[in-house]
Parts: sequence; C-alpha cells; structure tokens
Amino acid sequence: MPKIAYFDNSGTTAVAKEVLDEMIPFFSEKYGNPSSIHAMGDAAAAAVSGARKKVAAALGCMPSEIIFTSGGTEADNLALMGFSSEKKKVITSAVEHSAILETCERMRPSGYDVRILPVDRDGRVSASDLMKVIDKNTALVSVMTANNVIGTIQPVAELAKIAHEHGALFHTDAVQAFTKTDIDIANIDMLSISGHKIHGPKGIGALYVRNGVDLRATMLGGGQEYGRRSSTENVPGIVGLGKAAELAVSTMRQDIARMTRLRDTMIDGILTIKGSYLNGPTDGRLCNNAHFGFGGIKGNDLVLALSKMNIMASAASACSAGSTEPSHVMTAIGRSPKEALSSLRISSSRYTTDDEAEHLLTSLPKALASLR
Amino acid sequence: MPKIAYFDNSGTTAVAKEVLDEMIPFFSEKYGNPSSIHAMGDAAAAAVSGARKKVAAALGCMPSEIIFTSGGTEADNLALMGFSSEKKKVITSAVEHSAILETCERMRPSGYDVRILPVDRDGRVSASDLMKVIDKNTALVSVMTANNVIGTIQPVAELAKIAHEHGALFHTDAVQAFTKTDIDIANIDMLSISGHKIHGPKGIGALYVRNGVDLRATMLGGGQEYGRRSSTENVPGIVGLGKAAELAVSTMRQDIARMTRLRDTMIDGILTIKGSYLNGPTDGRLCNNAHFGFGGIKGNDLVLALSKMNIMASAASACSAGSTEPSHVMTAIGRSPKEALSSLRISSSRYTTDDEAEHLLTSLPKALASLR
Repeated sequence: MPKIAYFDNSGTTAVAKEVLDEMIPFFSEKYGNPSSIHAMGDAAAAAVSGARKKVAAALGCMPSEIIFTSGGTEADNLALMGFSSEKKKVITSAVEHSAILETCERMRPSGYDVRILPVDRDGRVSASDLMKVIDKNTALVSVMTANNVIGTIQPVAELAKIAHEHGALFHTDAVQAFTKTDIDIANIDMLSISGHKIHGPKGIGALYVRNGVDLRATMLGGGQEYGRRSSTENVPGIVGLGKAAELAVSTMRQDIARMTRLRDTMIDGILTIKGSYLNGPTDGRLCNNAHFGFGGIKGNDLVLALSKMNIMASAASACSAGSTEPSHVMTAIGRSPKEALSSLRISSSRYTTDDEAEHLLTSLPKALASLR
Repeated sequence: MPKIAYFDNSGTTAVAKEVLDEMIPFFSEKYGNPSSIHAMGDAAAAAVSGARKKVAAALGCMPSEIIFTSGGTEADNLALMGFSSEKKKVITSAVEHSAILETCERMRPSGYDVRILPVDRDGRVSASDLMKVIDKNTALVSVMTANNVIGTIQPVAELAKIAHEHGALFHTDAVQAFTKTDIDIANIDMLSISGHKIHGPKGIGALYVRNGVDLRATMLGGGQEYGRRSSTENVPGIVGLGKAAELAVSTMRQDIARMTRLRDTMIDGILTIKGSYLNGPTDGRLCNNAHFGFGGIKGNDLVLALSKMNIMASAASACSAGSTEPSHVMTAIGRSPKEALSSLRISSSRYTTDDEAEHLLTSLPKALASLR
C-alpha cells in the first residue's frame, strides 16, 4: 500500500527531483540579479535565457515570445488586461477558470461587451456557438485548452481559426493541458501555462505572446521581460519551469499513454460503484482527469474521508476547494447544485503508480459506505 | 582573499541557509495546494499561515494585514492600482523606485493628478514640500522608507502623519529598508517588502495593508489572500519570506551595527581616492549602502573591471543596471548626467565579511587606474 495516494495533480503537483536539483544552485550560490551587469548577474541572466529557450521549445515558439509571470493566474490576467484593441467585444466560455471569468467581469465597467459561450453536457464549446456571437467588433476570444474540473479538451484549433477569420485575437488558458495533450500554436496569439501543474515549482508561469501582438504590461517597474512584466526575475522558479517543461515533453508520449490507461482503469472500476456516474466526456478528455458524481454524499465529506485513508483528491478545483457553492463548471454542463456538490475529482500525474490507483479503487467504496 | 566579494546586496541577496532549509520540504514532499481541504492541503495552508505570522510579527501588525505577492514590484503596483478613493490626487517623490513612478504615470490618463515631490541634495523629501502640495483632494501619498540607489532614509513617520491629517492614505516602499532600519507602521496604511532583499527567495514579497483600508485586488481568480491576490500560493516562497523576516529581525540590532561600521570603513577608505565623492547623506543613511562618484570613468566600465577581480557591485540600481541613461535618483539630487553615469553603488549585507571589504578597498584603486 502506498504511503500516500495523491490524486490532486490538477490542483498541484510535486516538484520533480530533476527540477529541484536544477533550481537549488540559484538560491544561495548563483544568486545574482539578471539585470546586474557583473559576472553573477550574467550567470543569472544566462540561466533565465536558457529556461526561456526550453519553454519556447516545448511550445514550438520563439524564446522572445515567452513572458515569465508569477503563475497561470497572472498569465491569464495579463493576456486579458494587457491586450490592446479598439474593439470592445470579448468572448469566453462558461467553463473557464475564475482567473479568466473574474477578469472578464472586471472588464465590463470599462465598456467591454463580454459574451460567455455555453457548453454541451460534456463541457465542450462549439464552433457554431462561437460563430453566432463573433463579429468584426470582437477583440479577443479566450477559451481554455482543457478544463481543470472535468478535463474536457476544447476544439481550440477550430475556435482559434474562427477568431482569426474575424480579425480577433485568440488566447487559451493551457494551464491544465500543457504537456498533457498536443498543443498547436498555429492560430493562437496568447497562451497561459503554470509551473506547478507540470512538476515545476509554484509561483512561476508564463504567457506565450505571438510576435506582433500588442501587449501592454500590467505590472510596471524595472522593465524586465521585454518591458512586458516588471519585477526582479524569479530565477530559481524560471529555471524550474524550464526544466519541468523540458522533462515533461521528453517523455510526453509514453506518459500520456500511461496516464490514459490508468485513468480508464479508474473510471471502469469506479463506475461499478452503485450510484456513481462520470462527469465530462469519455472521448477528448485529459489523460489525467476523472471526475465522478455519487448520489447521497457531499463531495467535501468524501474528500475528508479519503484523506483519512491517505488518499488526496478533490471535490472541485483546488482554487474553489472547500467551497460550499456548486462549481460553475458543473452547473454549466447541466448538473443540479446537489449533483455538483456530490462530486470527486481524481487527477493523476506521470508519477502516479498502479499501487496508488489500486489503493483508491479498494478504499473508495469503504469511504462512500462510511458516509451513507 | 575572498573567492567573491559581493557588494550588490541592494540588487539581490543570497538566500540564507536556514531559509533554504525551511523551504526545501515544500517543493517535493509537502507540496499540497493550500486551497485543498485534504491533509496535504492543510499542511500547506498551515505553513502559509505560519509564515504570515512571522512577517506580521516582523512588522508589528496582524497576520490578516499581510498579503503575499510575487515581489516588491507587485506589492507597489497593488498598493497604487488597488486602493479605492473618490479623490484624485496622488503624491509621490522624485526618487521612488520605477515600480512606483511608472505606475503613477499609468494612472494619469485615468484622471489622477500625480504630483512628484522634489528632494534635497541628499535625496531627502521634506515635510514642507509635502505640505505645499497635499490637500483634501489627496487620495494617497507614497514615499519610500529608504532609497535603493543612495540609501537615503526618508522622514516617513512625519510624512505619514501629514498624509493622515489631510485624510489621505500613506504607502511606503520599504523593500530596501525592511530589517535594515526601524519601521513604525503607526501612520502607515500600506507598506511593500520583498523576499530577495533580505536573504529570502526571489519571486515573493508582501504588501502590508492596514485593517480597514479598502484595497481592490488587481490579480483576479481563485480569491486567495483574503480575496486580495488570486493565484495558487507560492508556498516555498512564502515559507522562505517568513523565515527570512524572522531571521533578519532576530539579529537586527547587531547586524545594523556591524553593517554601519563596515559601511563607514568603506566610505572613509574610498573617499581617500582622488576625485571620489559620496552621493547621498552621511546621516540618516541605510546601514548597508555606500554610493560614490568618480571623475573621468563610466560606472558601467568600473563595475565590469571590478567583476573581473571577483568583486560584484553596481553602477545604478539593479533594475536599471546596464542602462546608459543616468539614474533618475542621481539627477533628482542635482548631479549632472555625466556625474550620474560615473557612479558606483556598494551595498553590503549581514553576511559581508571584513575580508570582502578589504578586498574592495585594495582593488578599487587598481580598477580605477586601469580605466583612466
């Protein structure tokens, strides 16, 4: 039996050993400020530059198109608050992360016409719904690559193409998707990623901004990150994100295959439990996400019961964990508040073992029984 | 002879061993998301809470008055962009960090009347100058506790009192001053600090916000930090800032005395070099800052010459290091552009050794000679 079975990888992941090893020297030895022109500053600047190349390589873009931020939330906020356009319509979806939805709400008083696209019962945005709303006055379309709650992979390439056909920019929050599904940046103007979702450290993320996109900094000061994000660079964090991206991409094919197999084993096993059902799609789902509803229990109670068995899972997304409100993603796919509040998210990683999955499968019925 | 003599501590500092030791477990072992309600989430939340108490204790405020940010720049930006007031005048000083000055410039188009207070030849803001400009329409006064370039300690208590007498909020950027001079938050509404200036990690900082101050989040999403700064908490960074603050405060008295002695030794020694002069005050100066002008050389060239001798120093502040423009701080104190560009900043830390100072004192004349 594993000491701990950790199934909250969509909430956050363990920093990989290789990542931490690469970060360590930059705390107390190579601790220069990349803006300093002396040798220690140069060494830090070189490390940042190396990490930028790694992240760019993972996304298939130029290093100068990567802006390091303090995380996925800042990347999302920067994309939405920083883009420049005379046009005033912004289109997003009902299942976006709160970093997108809250920021869109903040834009309304400034005269933005914010439109929220609906999703189907699997949580998917449709091209036809986008076509109904988009017009020549649309500045930006922002739809996530994959959902953080139920794992739905969105038809981003198709949506981005439509955005471009209408002269709109396209942004995608790829925080959950990055290194867990293929991303083609062909028609994507801006894309958000986060370190701590890919076995990198917390407190670091990046926004890909295609060359030519007019993005105004939202954090002002020393002019770091090509003048687009001021603040002394978080060198160990940046180095960690670079290594985490490189590492994840290097074994991405086999990791996705393994996580998919593990996910399907867990889905098959858990759906044999009476009263259980799957939320989100069976096809076009993130390899590491499984999300269930169970009649007659509260998701938060189930998470706590599992935690006592050393199994870490989530009832909602981590950023709204513990909330007694139903998830906006669940209500968007047509679940009742009661159904929404009886759910469990199982999110694995490339480090999740068969033992952990087995421990979950044998323990979950007991946890449910204890609550019923 | 020390391997490296590091005199760029106002640019950034080495993470203290005790700080890094305390951070390490939170990368790959106790890596939970503080928002998760399971045991690993609880452990992370407890660590964040503990660090918040340490930072609050160091400042003499309540833990709930501390908002963790990604650094000093974000703290400054949040204070200025986030405060809420019907009033439209904002007053700052000519020697503020660019995180303040750039943000103030960004506020002008929104209708803010931004006033920049002058400074005297030592870089000091006067109460009488503030009195001339402040009125009942003043929303906020922001003056740094101590200057990052020439180390001038500002009469913040006096300025804050005047701000309050006029119904204005008072913010201070204490990034350089925190743990290096006494700070009394009595009349201070908001105060910015940074981890990497006090032997904590880069990528973390905090804004003290007095209870009752109406501050609107500028980064939106999951509602972390009491709804005032969304984004998954940088747990290792926060733990590091907490430990760094605790550590610095625990030996602050003797460290300040030691750094003051070292600073004065270096000032006395360097002023014996022909053509050298001190920038900034002799009294009311940060214990770790010494800033010089030298006739006939370029500061950047001097920094590079010293770097070859394994001495790390700065010609300006790190955030504008390498710039060929004269520092706005230097021109504000009345130095000519040529004088401004011939300067050297020597900033020590509590870990600076007598050997390092001696190495600097014997090497600097040689470096200068090589350039003349």
